[in-house]
Amino acid sequence: MEKKYVVGVDLGGTKIYTALVDLEGNIIKEKTVETLAHEGEQAVMGRIVDTINYVIDGTDKDLIKSIGIGSPGPLDVKNGIIIENSNLPFKNFAIVKTIKETYDLPTYLDNDANVATLGEFMFGAGKGTENMVFITASTGIGGGAVLNGKLFRGSTGNALEVGHMTVATEGPRCGCGNLGCAEALGSGTAIGKRAKEAVLSNVVTSLKNYENVTAKEVFKEAANGDRVAKNILNTSLTYLGIAVANTITNFDPEKVVVGGGVVNGGDIVIDTIRNVVEERCMAAFVENCTIEKAVLGGKAGVLGAAALAITEK
Amino acid sequence: MEKKYVVGVDLGGTKIYTALVDLEGNIIKEKTVETLAHEGEQAVMGRIVDTINYVIDGTDKDLIKSIGIGSPGPLDVKNGIIIENSNLPFKNFAIVKTIKETYDLPTYLDNDANVATLGEFMFGAGKGTENMVFITASTGIGGGAVLNGKLFRGSTGNALEVGHMTVATEGPRCGCGNLGCAEALGSGTAIGKRAKEAVLSNVVTSLKNYENVTAKEVFKEAANGDRVAKNILNTSLTYLGIAVANTITNFDPEKVVVGGGVVNGGDIVIDTIRNVVEERCMAAFVENCTIEKAVLGGKAGVLGAAALAITEK
Repeated sequence: MEKKYVVGVDLGGTKIYTALVDLEGNIIKEKTVETLAHEGEQAVMGRIVDTINYVIDGTDKDLIKSIGIGSPGPLDVKNGIIIENSNLPFKNFAIVKTIKETYDLPTYLDNDANVATLGEFMFGAGKGTENMVFITASTGIGGGAVLNGKLFRGSTGNALEVGHMTVATEGPRCGCGNLGCAEALGSGTAIGKRAKEAVLSNVVTSLKNYENVTAKEVFKEAANGDRVAKNILNTSLTYLGIAVANTITNFDPEKVVVGGGVVNGGDIVIDTIRNVVEERCMAAFVENCTIEKAVLGGKAGVLGAAALAITEK
Repeated sequence: MEKKYVVGVDLGGTKIYTALVDLEGNIIKEKTVETLAHEGEQAVMGRIVDTINYVIDGTDKDLIKSIGIGSPGPLDVKNGIIIENSNLPFKNFAIVKTIKETYDLPTYLDNDANVATLGEFMFGAGKGTENMVFITASTGIGGGAVLNGKLFRGSTGNALEVGHMTVATEGPRCGCGNLGCAEALGSGTAIGKRAKEAVLSNVVTSLKNYENVTAKEVFKEAANGDRVAKNILNTSLTYLGIAVANTITNFDPEKVVVGGGVVNGGDIVIDTIRNVVEERCMAAFVENCTIEKAVLGGKAGVLGAAALAITEK
């Protein structure tokens, strides 16, 4: 019998989002529950199983091919283990073994960036490409790549930590310990930091009413014409653009898909990235590579987990 | 009958270096001639054929598997064409077709960086790895990568232009037009430029006797204790190290092999690169990745071309 469906599980610190998905990426049935990580390993594992039971209920089990799980890392992908994560109760937890035993179905695990990369590649903005890079900018900057039609993981599963490329030798200290990482200069967090500095200074800006100013407010005030907000965005998005440009220079992709909260700030994000890439990359790259906004949004994780279930063997 | 040999051709602007090579990378017979590019297409093509004839003479042709050619680019690798190169007389020249017709043997072409990468991977410092990056620093900075055991070319054949990553937003203008490329800051040319600036200023340095000071002299005077020469090397090699660190952060390789003229400057080169990588890369990368000097030296091109002939299908 031809297998027609897979199950995708998007496991996050806040929510568990599970769906039965067909091989074209259509969600047939879905369920979202709160993770409630503080309740511990057994409770969270129970909730994952509940969501899977819910989405497969009513479907002939013989039509289900496999299960994919996207989780924040670090993971031991090969052995299907969540090593540790500050937002999840799992520690060296063999999640793949547990799920596999429960459902007697092939089960695969990968980190959220890789899973989102696969999702955009199979069902989103990267459809039809052979070499695609995915870059996500929100709190941090991360990425993934499909090379010659296959997910590229690197030798430890940590490839495309694009936010931790040095783009300013003497730049600010990054969370990773290095100075001048792209993430410390061009992430949503970096936008918020610059805005806070502005608010705390005496410059004239409509940002001044915010005590805990965020990237979202900077985008709003920039759109309203605030000069300081515009300047903060220009600086920050230029660094994000450099991270994209450097990644293109290394991977020579046909397409870069940019996702994460920062892209929701408006057209200015992709426009600035495109300008920086045109300024900084060699012509051969610029002519060949398009830069597009991710399209899967909040479904990137669950559809990516489904894509993992479809492609892994 | 089991095929036992391939022919490697290292086509350069100065020399043509051709060898009959066995499948373990041993050179059986070799020939080097001057390119004499000014004599034109027919003459140079004739010399390439002469060198091949010389190295295969005396060997049963049935034992020869294929021919590999490494050439400076830009190339159309798929169609075996040298598009153009300022040091060679070829323009849109179908070199693969010509060689194939002459010898009735499968023939493959790739650019010098890719070929050197393959050479180090199969027969040099990268032997036994699955994910290896090769970075070459001389006049410029270039690179190549073997990912999951296969040469990675990118979608236009230009992957790993690592010298053109931006590492200092407002840095000096690079030959490519961009500001602050790794090549403009960390290549042999950059070392020479800094040395010239020092010589033309009034600082106390033993470099001052040189009118057209080169990287070689900077290494020599630094080894002799000259403070300015040491400072120039530290600055330049730190930028080279950042290019290596950023490439590790993107590709997550097991090994980086560093070749090109600059590595011949002494242990200081690899030592500085290692220090910068330890400072700037995340622990997961540092623990997993070794950085080593290339070992094939002047034979990288010819053995790489042989490796191309062995691996391509």
